[in-house]
Amino acid sequence: MKINLPQTIRWDTNTLSLYFIDQTKLPLELVEEKQETIEQVWNSIKVLKVRGAPAIGIAGAYGLLIGLRDQQNLSNELFMQELKKQADYLNSSRPTAVNLSWALKRMVAVAKKIATKSSAEIFNTLVKEAILIHDEDRQICRNIGKFGLPLIKENFGVLTHCNAGTLAVSEFGTATAPMYTAFEQGIKFRVYADETRPLLQGARLTAWELQRTGLDVTLICDNMAAYIMSKELVNLVITGTDRVAANGDVANKIGTFGVAILAKYFGIPFYIAAPSSTIDLDTPNGKAIVIEERDAKEVTHFGLRQTAPDNIKVRNPAFDVTPHELITGIITDWGIVYPPYEQNLQIFKTPKAINFL
Amino acid sequence: MKINLPQTIRWDTNTLSLYFIDQTKLPLELVEEKQETIEQVWNSIKVLKVRGAPAIGIAGAYGLLIGLRDQQNLSNELFMQELKKQADYLNSSRPTAVNLSWALKRMVAVAKKIATKSSAEIFNTLVKEAILIHDEDRQICRNIGKFGLPLIKENFGVLTHCNAGTLAVSEFGTATAPMYTAFEQGIKFRVYADETRPLLQGARLTAWELQRTGLDVTLICDNMAAYIMSKELVNLVITGTDRVAANGDVANKIGTFGVAILAKYFGIPFYIAAPSSTIDLDTPNGKAIVIEERDAKEVTHFGLRQTAPDNIKVRNPAFDVTPHELITGIITDWGIVYPPYEQNLQIFKTPKAINFL
Repeated sequence: MKINLPQTIRWDTNTLSLYFIDQTKLPLELVEEKQETIEQVWNSIKVLKVRGAPAIGIAGAYGLLIGLRDQQNLSNELFMQELKKQADYLNSSRPTAVNLSWALKRMVAVAKKIATKSSAEIFNTLVKEAILIHDEDRQICRNIGKFGLPLIKENFGVLTHCNAGTLAVSEFGTATAPMYTAFEQGIKFRVYADETRPLLQGARLTAWELQRTGLDVTLICDNMAAYIMSKELVNLVITGTDRVAANGDVANKIGTFGVAILAKYFGIPFYIAAPSSTIDLDTPNGKAIVIEERDAKEVTHFGLRQTAPDNIKVRNPAFDVTPHELITGIITDWGIVYPPYEQNLQIFKTPKAINFL
Repeated sequence: MKINLPQTIRWDTNTLSLYFIDQTKLPLELVEEKQETIEQVWNSIKVLKVRGAPAIGIAGAYGLLIGLRDQQNLSNELFMQELKKQADYLNSSRPTAVNLSWALKRMVAVAKKIATKSSAEIFNTLVKEAILIHDEDRQICRNIGKFGLPLIKENFGVLTHCNAGTLAVSEFGTATAPMYTAFEQGIKFRVYADETRPLLQGARLTAWELQRTGLDVTLICDNMAAYIMSKELVNLVITGTDRVAANGDVANKIGTFGVAILAKYFGIPFYIAAPSSTIDLDTPNGKAIVIEERDAKEVTHFGLRQTAPDNIKVRNPAFDVTPHELITGIITDWGIVYPPYEQNLQIFKTPKAINFL
């Protein structure tokens, strides 16, 4: 069965046009918004119309093309200046997203190599590079899907947390990649999507994209996972990750750690889906990962509606760190890594050439 | 330090007046609503202006007085008929709340004993009985507080789930009773209140009543408990319960089971506060407790705002069962019960005369 996934980011080379699904309108409306100017791209990233670290990188690379498409009659020198200026500008939309600066640097670097050519030639090379970044990301997700596929067996229940799906990455997503792959193979299984407070990425995004594709998905509140697991409805947990430390500790959306503890209690395998780019051997362990504390209003309000007392103290950590001993395996685009992680993650020490394209 | 708690239910014998805090307006507005007619009382219970099993029982007993205060010139025979009719009527407001029917039956029974007296005398006896039901409930909570007090030590962090506070019971509440008692004794400690999706009783009610009284309370989303525990900020968990089975399994608001598993993982004592009326030796274990599945809209909507896709499948169990092996102790109004529960809960077999009044 061929599956039909929404195109989170869509580039049309013929018309040099860029479109994003406006994720702030999901799940109520599916609106594809044409990006007319680089300022609009900047704003779309800023206000989370496009979100998820890999997706933002791809959006940034294409965004540069929107800023440069009408600059091809500049001298190559001025064109290169313009490129760097626009890359800096786009990078300021979400300065902490590593993938954004990574993609923009890669675009600038490829242009630098041919900086003596005409602006039009440089631009065409940039178009190819942006498409390549997007294609590589697709392939990374496909590989995660391929390696994760054997984990999902007929009639399994798979629980996931937050959104590490097509909306956050491209095509198959990361945590969702084994699910989409299994679905494509005709394997029958159920998915439970944690709603993922406070921002409800599970309810708004994961439930939406899985349901839309035809998967059997059930939405639950985060605090229902233990109940659902106790009824033997969950055989496997797969979540995404923002960063994997050298010892296998994993930072991901708040609540992941709790799900991992529950999975351990019920003897359910707990897997992390991680593109190799998120494996950070320079971070020795989870303790070295700084957890961002976000605005209290995310907890005290729902949309514009206040649901907690005025001036109530709030904790709102955006992420938590799941210790490696709770993680059954890490599904990467290079294969599944099993414990001992300290030793087995060393294969990521020398960046492998991307050889699957 | 004398603490000042909101009066969830207030009765004024001089003017025969009844007032409820309208809990549907919390935490944004504290509105005490005078109950003018028995129909208004019925509606207040129906639409959850007053909620929590013990509180509903008290509300029902006083509610009868509102219906009967202008019937004292009836013959005693007609007065007794009126009493039974009104008790049946009030009982229909929330037919599944055991405490409501229990309190109404108790009111009718006490009247029956003196059914040959004048209507005015019967009414006065009913006034005294309603006040007694309320006083007994206060004393039950005080006793839970007294027995739970030694668990809360200086600088402790105490986590609770849902609302088993003054708003659900009377005065000290059940899960909150050891906290209010410790606060009164000047012990310094912190409370973490789980927001408790889907209906947010923790955010709307527990955070409100603890903050208002002056306790140091911090609101968190349910899925942040593991993170907060991992930072060694929690030394003790206390929650309420809807029913304790003969083997010590405990039914309580959805999410309690998950918190108990986390507490076990982190080695944090996990206590249940249970008025002896909730200990049900006729229920052998948790498997015998039927879990109510509630409307999907509670999960897919926030207030009137839809936050999940149309037609998404949802699970919405209102309660879960925490197995006895995860429970450190059960704080009752008779003392703390420790394992083996099967054996130690037998003291509740012969209903003890309430001897503390």
